Amino acid sequence: MVDEHADPTVGELREGVILRSILDRLGESNALVGPGDDAAVIAAADGRVVATVDTLVHGPDFRLAWSSAYDLGYKSAAVNLADVAAMGATPTALLVALAMPESTHLSFVTGLADGLRAACRELAPGCRVEGGDLTVSDTLTIAVTALGALAGRAPVLRSGARAGDVVAVAGELGRAARGLRVLFERFTDAADAPVPVDESVLSPAERDDLAAQLRPAPPVALGPLAADAGATAMMDVSDGLLLDASRLAAASGVSVAIDSTALGDDTHSALTGGEDHALLATFPPDRPLPAGFRRIGRVVARSADPVLVDGAPYAGRTGWDPYRDWDARTG
Amino acid sequence: MVDEHADPTVGELREGVILRSILDRLGESNALVGPGDDAAVIAAADGRVVATVDTLVHGPDFRLAWSSAYDLGYKSAAVNLADVAAMGATPTALLVALAMPESTHLSFVTGLADGLRAACRELAPGCRVEGGDLTVSDTLTIAVTALGALAGRAPVLRSGARAGDVVAVAGELGRAARGLRVLFERFTDAADAPVPVDESVLSPAERDDLAAQLRPAPPVALGPLAADAGATAMMDVSDGLLLDASRLAAASGVSVAIDSTALGDDTHSALTGGEDHALLATFPPDRPLPAGFRRIGRVVARSADPVLVDGAPYAGRTGWDPYRDWDARTG
Repeated sequence: MVDEHADPTVGELREGVILRSILDRLGESNALVGPGDDAAVIAAADGRVVATVDTLVHGPDFRLAWSSAYDLGYKSAAVNLADVAAMGATPTALLVALAMPESTHLSFVTGLADGLRAACRELAPGCRVEGGDLTVSDTLTIAVTALGALAGRAPVLRSGARAGDVVAVAGELGRAARGLRVLFERFTDAADAPVPVDESVLSPAERDDLAAQLRPAPPVALGPLAADAGATAMMDVSDGLLLDASRLAAASGVSVAIDSTALGDDTHSALTGGEDHALLATFPPDRPLPAGFRRIGRVVARSADPVLVDGAPYAGRTGWDPYRDWDARTG
Repeated sequence: MVDEHADPTVGELREGVILRSILDRLGESNALVGPGDDAAVIAAADGRVVATVDTLVHGPDFRLAWSSAYDLGYKSAAVNLADVAAMGATPTALLVALAMPESTHLSFVTGLADGLRAACRELAPGCRVEGGDLTVSDTLTIAVTALGALAGRAPVLRSGARAGDVVAVAGELGRAARGLRVLFERFTDAADAPVPVDESVLSPAERDDLAAQLRPAPPVALGPLAADAGATAMMDVSDGLLLDASRLAAASGVSVAIDSTALGDDTHSALTGGEDHALLATFPPDRPLPAGFRRIGRVVARSADPVLVDGAPYAGRTGWDPYRDWDARTG
């Protein structure tokens, strides 16, 4: 017997013990075949399955001084659940490939499992971790695959927006970016290295922003509702509204005209901040928007600028990363 | 325009350029929605999808001095295709999460894509990389998710073996382990660090063993055939026959009696060597084995030893790793 209260490292434990500790946290399987065999078997009732993968890597994507294991589990699930939702689908299962140093404590692994489960419970009830893989690595890496069901709907692609459509979003814009600024400005040492978060020094608004960065809560349930309401195109906003709207515009052969007065007080963060995983969608102009979506602009004929803000190219810093340029997915 | 002939590093390139280089190597999508949107949409005609993930990490799982990019692409696909086959399913799609240092050259990425495509073409025609994720990491990490279709079959679990069943395998046993020994014995320097492989110094048999280690070719097409032939239990042999047969025995509540005379000349490697990803299956005794499977023993009533070799517990070194102990998956 291993005494979990002693919080051993994973290098001291048998893989079976680690797996059991994870599975004990995840609750009952919802799958036709859940964890424990060579593969899981997941229902895909309408004969199609939506599938996506996204990875969080220690260093580029998170710092352990800032994110708890629970936060990382929550975020790694949330970002993938949002991708499924953005197709108009309902998440059905996650597979988690966890690569971690042998010095990782068991409490980290169980905390991560708790965060994964909480994200599923809060954002996508019925979805669960149904499989995965544990490996040793010098770099803590969490690759989550999410599967989803369209329930007879046509998938909503990035390429279907037409001039005249309404542009709308559901969920937060810019809050996670403000939370990231809180981390960099308040919780680094003199050498700019991350130091542990102390929430007691933050205002309520800062705490909310920080929560949005560490544990984003995209409106997963609204993806299928948008599809049912006739969304012509949809994607999740992972790299900022300007950048992601540019991708949607390029895929659809249109331009997107945004009305900055619809973006709240912190327009710059709303336009350039990523990681909230809001849903960006376009709808035919002649129908009411589904509950949870708000109008932020309209689709116009393609012009030299994929995105216009109040009728002109955005003049502020876009925050675009050369590794994440606007043509990243659409060529 | 980026001059690919100059072989830039991925840190010098936009993500869109890297993605395009990969997609150009992968050929046409077979999916309902292929790469380029928030998620792929894959056919799952009988209303179920088989799903599994396995990760290769630089250091624990491979050395770049020994494995080419092509080898890594091939192997990372093959190990996951084998898991799908072991359920009795046919692979339909792969998702590839690739985390790599910014110093990685573009030629590495395209070589990896070539290996992924070759493994699909040779082992699972119709299966393709239909999605993925690129991230920066200090540690080169390849997490592959494989999806598969059962085409109306019941999935073949580890838990269905019954006393009296025939135990059979399809594919190699022990060859990849011999290939690993070739690497450690012939291609390390005085400090036991890996040095580049020079195949010209090897015998033909050593070259074959090395190929089995670097580019395993599991009998993926035989998984569905085994299911159709009535296999009562099945799994792929990833950690060695003794260890994996113990898992199957534990899941089924039986013991497995192996006849060592069926294992060829190198009995020890066949019993303890992993990574060939042969298919281990049990069949009712009253039917002919499907083509490609050979009898290696029988299922007996559960005893104190989950696996017997020629009627007794195996006396040799098992090669079991505390991180990969026999109860790893089945508890």
